[in-house]
Amino acid sequence: MAPAGAKRNILERLDAGEIVIGDGGFVFALEKRGYVKAGPWTPEAAAEHPEAVRQLHREFLRAGSNVMQTFTFYASDDKLENRGNAQRFTGTQINEAACDLAREVANEGDAMVAGGVSQTPSYLSCKCEDEVKSIFKRQLDVFVKKNVDFMIAEYFEHVEEAEWAVQVLKTSGKPVCASLCIGPDGDLNGVSPGDCAVRLVKAGANIVGINCHFDPMTCVKTVKMMKEGVERAGLKAHYMVQPLAFHTPDCNCQGFIDLPEFPFGLEPRILTRWDMHKYAREAFNVGIRFIGGCCGFEPYHIRAVAEELATERGYLPAASEKHGNWGAGLEMHTKPWVRARARRDYWEKLKPASGRPKCPSMSTPDSWGVTKGHADLMQHKEATSQEELKPLFEKAKASH
Amino acid sequence: MAPAGAKRNILERLDAGEIVIGDGGFVFALEKRGYVKAGPWTPEAAAEHPEAVRQLHREFLRAGSNVMQTFTFYASDDKLENRGNAQRFTGTQINEAACDLAREVANEGDAMVAGGVSQTPSYLSCKCEDEVKSIFKRQLDVFVKKNVDFMIAEYFEHVEEAEWAVQVLKTSGKPVCASLCIGPDGDLNGVSPGDCAVRLVKAGANIVGINCHFDPMTCVKTVKMMKEGVERAGLKAHYMVQPLAFHTPDCNCQGFIDLPEFPFGLEPRILTRWDMHKYAREAFNVGIRFIGGCCGFEPYHIRAVAEELATERGYLPAASEKHGNWGAGLEMHTKPWVRARARRDYWEKLKPASGRPKCPSMSTPDSWGVTKGHADLMQHKEATSQEELKPLFEKAKASH
Amino acid sequence: MAPAGAKRNILERLDAGEIVIGDGGFVFALEKRGYVKAGPWTPEAAAEHPEAVRQLHREFLRAGSNVMQTFTFYASDDKLENRGNAQRFTGTQINEAACDLAREVANEGDAMVAGGVSQTPSYLSCKCEDEVKSIFKRQLDVFVKKNVDFMIAEYFEHVEEAEWAVQVLKTSGKPVCASLCIGPDGDLNGVSPGDCAVRLVKAGANIVGINCHFDPMTCVKTVKMMKEGVERAGLKAHYMVQPLAFHTPDCNCQGFIDLPEFPFGLEPRILTRWDMHKYAREAFNVGIRFIGGCCGFEPYHIRAVAEELATERGYLPAASEKHGNWGAGLEMHTKPWVRARARRDYWEKLKPASGRPKCPSMSTPDSWGVTKGHADLMQHKEATSQEELKPLFEKAKASH
Amino acid sequence: MAPAGAKRNILERLDAGEIVIGDGGFVFALEKRGYVKAGPWTPEAAAEHPEAVRQLHREFLRAGSNVMQTFTFYASDDKLENRGNAQRFTGTQINEAACDLAREVANEGDAMVAGGVSQTPSYLSCKCEDEVKSIFKRQLDVFVKKNVDFMIAEYFEHVEEAEWAVQVLKTSGKPVCASLCIGPDGDLNGVSPGDCAVRLVKAGANIVGINCHFDPMTCVKTVKMMKEGVERAGLKAHYMVQPLAFHTPDCNCQGFIDLPEFPFGLEPRILTRWDMHKYAREAFNVGIRFIGGCCGFEPYHIRAVAEELATERGYLPAASEKHGNWGAGLEMHTKPWVRARARRDYWEKLKPASGRPKCPSMSTPDSWGVTKGHADLMQHKEATSQEELKPLFEKAKASH
Repeated sequence: MAPAGAKRNILERLDAGEIVIGDGGFVFALEKRGYVKAGPWTPEAAAEHPEAVRQLHREFLRAGSNVMQTFTFYASDDKLENRGNAQRFTGTQINEAACDLAREVANEGDAMVAGGVSQTPSYLSCKCEDEVKSIFKRQLDVFVKKNVDFMIAEYFEHVEEAEWAVQVLKTSGKPVCASLCIGPDGDLNGVSPGDCAVRLVKAGANIVGINCHFDPMTCVKTVKMMKEGVERAGLKAHYMVQPLAFHTPDCNCQGFIDLPEFPFGLEPRILTRWDMHKYAREAFNVGIRFIGGCCGFEPYHIRAVAEELATERGYLPAASEKHGNWGAGLEMHTKPWVRARARRDYWEKLKPASGRPKCPSMSTPDSWGVTKGHADLMQHKEATSQEELKPLFEKAKASH
Repeated sequence: MAPAGAKRNILERLDAGEIVIGDGGFVFALEKRGYVKAGPWTPEAAAEHPEAVRQLHREFLRAGSNVMQTFTFYASDDKLENRGNAQRFTGTQINEAACDLAREVANEGDAMVAGGVSQTPSYLSCKCEDEVKSIFKRQLDVFVKKNVDFMIAEYFEHVEEAEWAVQVLKTSGKPVCASLCIGPDGDLNGVSPGDCAVRLVKAGANIVGINCHFDPMTCVKTVKMMKEGVERAGLKAHYMVQPLAFHTPDCNCQGFIDLPEFPFGLEPRILTRWDMHKYAREAFNVGIRFIGGCCGFEPYHIRAVAEELATERGYLPAASEKHGNWGAGLEMHTKPWVRARARRDYWEKLKPASGRPKCPSMSTPDSWGVTKGHADLMQHKEATSQEELKPLFEKAKASH
Repeated sequence: MAPAGAKRNILERLDAGEIVIGDGGFVFALEKRGYVKAGPWTPEAAAEHPEAVRQLHREFLRAGSNVMQTFTFYASDDKLENRGNAQRFTGTQINEAACDLAREVANEGDAMVAGGVSQTPSYLSCKCEDEVKSIFKRQLDVFVKKNVDFMIAEYFEHVEEAEWAVQVLKTSGKPVCASLCIGPDGDLNGVSPGDCAVRLVKAGANIVGINCHFDPMTCVKTVKMMKEGVERAGLKAHYMVQPLAFHTPDCNCQGFIDLPEFPFGLEPRILTRWDMHKYAREAFNVGIRFIGGCCGFEPYHIRAVAEELATERGYLPAASEKHGNWGAGLEMHTKPWVRARARRDYWEKLKPASGRPKCPSMSTPDSWGVTKGHADLMQHKEATSQEELKPLFEKAKASH
Repeated sequence: MAPAGAKRNILERLDAGEIVIGDGGFVFALEKRGYVKAGPWTPEAAAEHPEAVRQLHREFLRAGSNVMQTFTFYASDDKLENRGNAQRFTGTQINEAACDLAREVANEGDAMVAGGVSQTPSYLSCKCEDEVKSIFKRQLDVFVKKNVDFMIAEYFEHVEEAEWAVQVLKTSGKPVCASLCIGPDGDLNGVSPGDCAVRLVKAGANIVGINCHFDPMTCVKTVKMMKEGVERAGLKAHYMVQPLAFHTPDCNCQGFIDLPEFPFGLEPRILTRWDMHKYAREAFNVGIRFIGGCCGFEPYHIRAVAEELATERGYLPAASEKHGNWGAGLEMHTKPWVRARARRDYWEKLKPASGRPKCPSMSTPDSWGVTKGHADLMQHKEATSQEELKPLFEKAKASH
C-alpha cells in the first residue's frame, strides 16, 4: 500500500496525473449482507450496525480505494421518514455516524473521505430552485462540520438539478465532483452528455462524470462524450466514472432499473474480475483518472481495477497479498488442469457460461418504462406515496 | 430470532423434527472480500484478520444460520506449509482462533459451533488407515479442547476415507455429520450414493449428506438417493445438504472444479435468492432437515432459505428486518413499474437474462478432467507438490 | 454416383457390409415448399403436384440416397378423410401415384423403393389385433401390386403395434424394417429399447431401428441400446436410424412434438451440415448401416451424410459436384477472410450463434405433455375427432 | 390466386397502390437442394438442371410471388470462367435458359419477369465507367431479346456503380429498380442511405431499395432512411426491400458475409414464418410496396409475407391452401396440446429455443472484416483471382 500520512487533496492528486480509485456501492453490497433493505435503500445501518459498515469500508480500502464515500445515500430526514421505517435513529445521527466510520477507516490507509448528495424528491415535485438548494445546504452542513475532504454530487438524472447541487457544494470551498446517472442518450430532458458536462463545469464542478445505471463500458463511453464536450468548449476538468458491476446491453435510457431483473435477479449479469480489468484499462485510456464503482461492486472488483492499473499507480493494493496476478494463485491448486488456468490468456478469452439454458441473453426492458404514453407518470416517478400516484395511474391506463 | 440460551444439541433438534439451517462457504465469500487466496484456499484470516471472519459469521447468524462452522478448512500444519505461504501464524493458532470466533458469534444467537475435518492429501498418496486416522485425531484434539458442539466430516470424494474420519470423530462422544462432495454418479470409485450413505451410517455417522461440487438441485437429488439407500437397508439417520450457489448443469462427476469458469468466471452461474427458495423447499420435501450452503453462498442466500422455511421454523431470521417477503420491499420504490415487481409470482417466473450475448449457456468441462486416460493422474490429484506430479504429467502426455 | 443397374436387395447390401443411405422426411420438406399442410400432414401432393414430389425424390437421390420411400405417410382413406380435406383424389390414387414417383426416380440411380406403414388411430382406440392388422394388410396390397423393393414399418410409439405390422409385412416375402419413434426411455408403455428390438426381431424384422421424434445423437444412442439388447439375446439383425434434423436436448419422452416450437418455430434448432458429419460418423461407429433422415432433413443434410461416409462407400454422391469437401468451395470466394474458412477445422469448431439474444437455449416442453394427470387424455391422443376428446378434456381440466 | 391474364406493368401496379411480392434468393435455396456450389455461387443449373430451377420458380409463384427474377446471378462469361468451373454451357446459354424458365412459370400465374444485373469485379478493379457500363450493356442485350418485363440492378455496395447500371438499364425503356446491399451506415464509401437513394432516383431508377446482406428489420430501416432522403429532396420513387431470412444483429457494415457462420453455419439464424409476418407488416407500414426476399428465403417465407398482407392484397396465395392462418392447420393435429397452438397469440409470443446450449446468441464478426488495417485489401475484395490478391495479403500480414 502507498504510504499513508501523505494525504493530499483529490485535486492535487489528479493535477499530478495520479489515478484515484473509488470504492463500490454500499447499498447493494450491504443488502446482500443483510443490513440494507431493497426498496427503501436507506443507510440506517451506519448507526444500527456500524461494525458491518466499517468492515465494508475496510475491504474497499484493502482493495485499493483512495476514496471512502460516507454511507449517507438517501439520508435526509424526510426521505428516511417517507420510506416507512419507524427509525431508531435520527437522520443527523445516521449522517454523523457515517462520516465518523468513513474517517476512521480512511485514516487506516491512503484514502480521502467524500461526502455526497444526490437527486431529491423535491426537484421532481417541481419545487423551486431555492427549496431544492436548501435541502442540499442542510446536508452540506453536516459534511462541513465533520470536515470531509471533498464533495460528490452524484446520481442525478437531470443536469439542472445537478448544477444547483454543485453551486451549493462550492460554497464549502472543498473540491466538488458532479456525477450523473445517464447514458449516451443524455439526461432525461435529452441534454447530451457533452452539454451536461459543459454546464456542470461552468457551475463550478472540478470533476465531472457518470455513476450507476449502466455497465462499465457504457459509462466510460458516456464520460468520453462529456470530455469531448468540455474540450470542444475550451474548458478544463477532471473526469470520474463509477459504473454498475452488471452487464446491461439491453437497457433503455432509464438504465438498469427498467430491466426486469432489477433488483433481485441481476446475478447472471455480474461482471467477473477480468471484465473489470478491461473496464479499468478502457477508462484509463479515455483519460478518466477517478475510477471507481457503484451498485454490484464487491471489494474484489475494485481490487481488479487496482491490479490492472498497478504499473501506472506504482503499487498493488493490500488485498493483492491474497490474489495472484491473473489467476497466478491457481499454481497452488491440487488439480493439474486447474493449475493450467493460472494465466492471463486463459481468463481473457473465457466466455463464461451461465449454466442457465432456459434463460435468454437479453431481456426486454419493462413496458412501463418505455411506454411513451406514460410520460406523465414518469415525470412523477419520485412522488412520495402511492396515494399521490393514483390519479396518474388512472390516466395512464385510460390512455391505452 | 428464536430465543438464544435454549441451546439444544443438533440431534435433539433434528429428533424433534426441527429444521437446522447451516451457514455458507467461507473461502469463496472471504476471497471476494480480500482475505483468502484462491488456489491455496487456506484460512489464515482467522488469525490475521479476525474482524473479517467474525463479521461473516455474524452475517450468516443474522441470515438464519443455526450452525457456525469453524473456519478451519485446510488448516493442518502440513497443508498450510505446502501451500507455500510463509505463515505468520502456526496452524494451532489459526485453528484456535477460528474456534473462538465461531463460539463468540454463536453465543450471540441460536447457533451451535461445528468443527470440521475434510479429505487429506495422505489418503490420496496411499497412506495407510492408521496414518490418515492420526491426522484426523490431531485435528479433533483442538475441537475437543475448544469444546465445539458437534463435528462435521465433509468434502470427501471417497467414502472409505470418510468412514475413517467418522470412526475417529465418534471417539469424542459428540454428534457426527458425514458429508461427501459427490453427485448422483457416486464417489470417485463408483460407489453409489445409497451405498455410501449406508457405509457412513454403519461407521457411526448420525447425519449424512452432501456438500460442495454441485448445484443445489443436484445435491438434493443425491441426498435423496442416500436416504433411499439408508431406508432400504433398514437403518436410520438424519440428512444434510450444503450445495454450491452456482448453477452447474454441465458438470461431470468431478463437479464445478472441472468447469472452465472455476474459480474466477463463475459469476453468471450465481443463484438468485428465488432459486434458493426452490432449493430450500425441495430439500425440505425430500426430508432433509440440516440445510445450508457451501461455496458461492452469501448471507442473503441463507436468508432466502430461512424465509422459505419460516412457517415450518416458526420465525424469520434477524436479517429479514431488512428484506420484504418475495420482494415486498419494492412497494417502497419510487418508480411504479418497479413497485409492480413486489410479488412472488413475478420473481418465480422470471428467467433472468445474462446480458452476455456472446456467452453460451453451458460450457464443456475441461478435457483434462474428463479424459479417461488421465486416470492415473487424477488418482493423485491431491498429491502435495508439483514435483511429485511430474512423472504423472509425463505419463499422461505420452498417452496422447 | 455408383453404377445403377446393379440393383441389389437391401439385405444383400447390408450383409455385404455396405452402407445404405436413406432419404429425408417429405412432409416437413414439402410443407416448406407449399405442398403439404401442417396439422393433417397428408400426402395428397403425390397426386396433386407430382412434379414437386418427383423433384424432392431427385434431390435426395442426387444427395446420395439409396432408398426412395414412397410418399404415403398417413395415406389410408380413413386418415385422409378425417383430416377434413375434401380430397380430389382417393387414397388409392395417392398411394399408387406415390409408388410410381418413387420408382421413376429410383430407376434414375442406385436406389431402391421402400413402401411404408406407420402407427394407426385404430390401435390407440383399442381396436383388436385383427382389425389393426387388416389395415396394414390393405396398405401392403398396394405396395405388393406396385412391387416395391422392401417394406418399412416406421413411426411406432408402441412396440406391440409394430410387431403386428411386421407380422403382416413379412407375408409379402420382402425384407422388412421396423423403426420406432422412441428415445432411450423406451416405448410409451415403458418397454426398453433393447427389449423392443428383441421383440421386433422375433416378430420377423430384418432391420430394426429408430426414426423421427429425437435428434440424431439421441436416436443413435437409442439404436445402440437396441443393438445391445439384440446381441444380449443372441439374435441377429441389421440396424437403421432416421432421426430429426433438429437439436432436441430438451425433449421429454414424447419427442419434439411436445416442444413449444413444434412445428412452426423449429428453425433455430436445424442441424448444420457439419452436425450431420458427426451424426453419420457416430451412427457408423455404433454399427448402424442404414443411415437416413426424417423431419427437417433437406437434401444437403443427406449429402453431408454421404460425404462423411464417402471413403467407406467408395464414392461421392452426384450433388457433391456442387459442394466442396468441408467448405472447399469457399476457396473460390472473392473475400479473403471467407476463403480462410475453406477448411474442416474451422467448421468443426464453430459454435454457431443464433442471432436471437432474447431466446433461450432450451425450452420447457408443454405442460400438457408432461402433466401426469393427463394420462387418460394422452392414451387417446390419436382419437379421430375433437368431438370424441371433449369428455377427456373436461376430465383433465377438472383434475387441476 | 389473383386472376392471371391481367398482366400489368410493375409501375402500373405500384402507382395503383398495389403490393408486389418478390421471390426469394435462388443461390442459397438451390445450394441446399444440390444444384449450386457455395463459393462460386454461379447459376449454371438454369441450363444443367432446368427442372430444379423451374420447380423453385413454381414454389415461389404458389407462395405469392408476383416477380420471377431470372436466375442469372453472376452469369457473365468472365465471372463463370474465373470461378474455375469447366462449364458445359456458355454464359449465353445459361442466361437464355434462365429467362425462358422465368417466363414459363410467370405465365402460369400473376407474375412478371425481372432481369437482373449486379456489381462487377471490373468496378472494384478500378476499371473506368465505360468499361463497367459495357458489361451491363451486354447483359441487358439478352434481357431485351428475351423481353423481360422490367429490370433490377441489385446487390451493389457502391452507389456510384449502381448509378452506372441504372443509366444503362434505362436505355431499354423498361422500368428499372435499383437495390443496394448496404445497411443504415450507408455504402462502402460512407454515402448515407438517403443520399444513395437520391442519386439513384436522379440516375433514373423508378424503384429504389435494399436487398441481401442484412436481416429484414435492418433492411426495412435502411429503406426507410432512403425514403426519407428522397422525400427531403422533393423527389418521387417507389420502394423495394428483399432482405436475408437470417437474424443478423451482430453484423458489421459488410453484412452477413463477415459473420463466422457464413455460409455453412447460418441455420440457427433462419427466420420463422412468424418473424416474416412482422417483417411484412413493418415493410408495409414504412411505405414499401415491392416486398420480397433474398438469401435464406424458402417458399414458406414468401407465403408468410403474402398471408400477412392478404387483406391489403385482397387474396391469399395458392400455397395457402396448404397452410392454416397463424397455425390453424394444427386444429387437425391428433395431440390436444398441439391443437392448443393453433392461434396467433401463441406463435407471436414464442421465443424459440435453439436447443444449442453451448452456442452463444451473437458471434463476433471475423477479424479480417473489421480490421481497419485491411482497408487496402477490402477495397479489392472482388478482385478476380487469388493471384491478384497476393501482394495485398502480404501487405496486410506485414501490417500486423
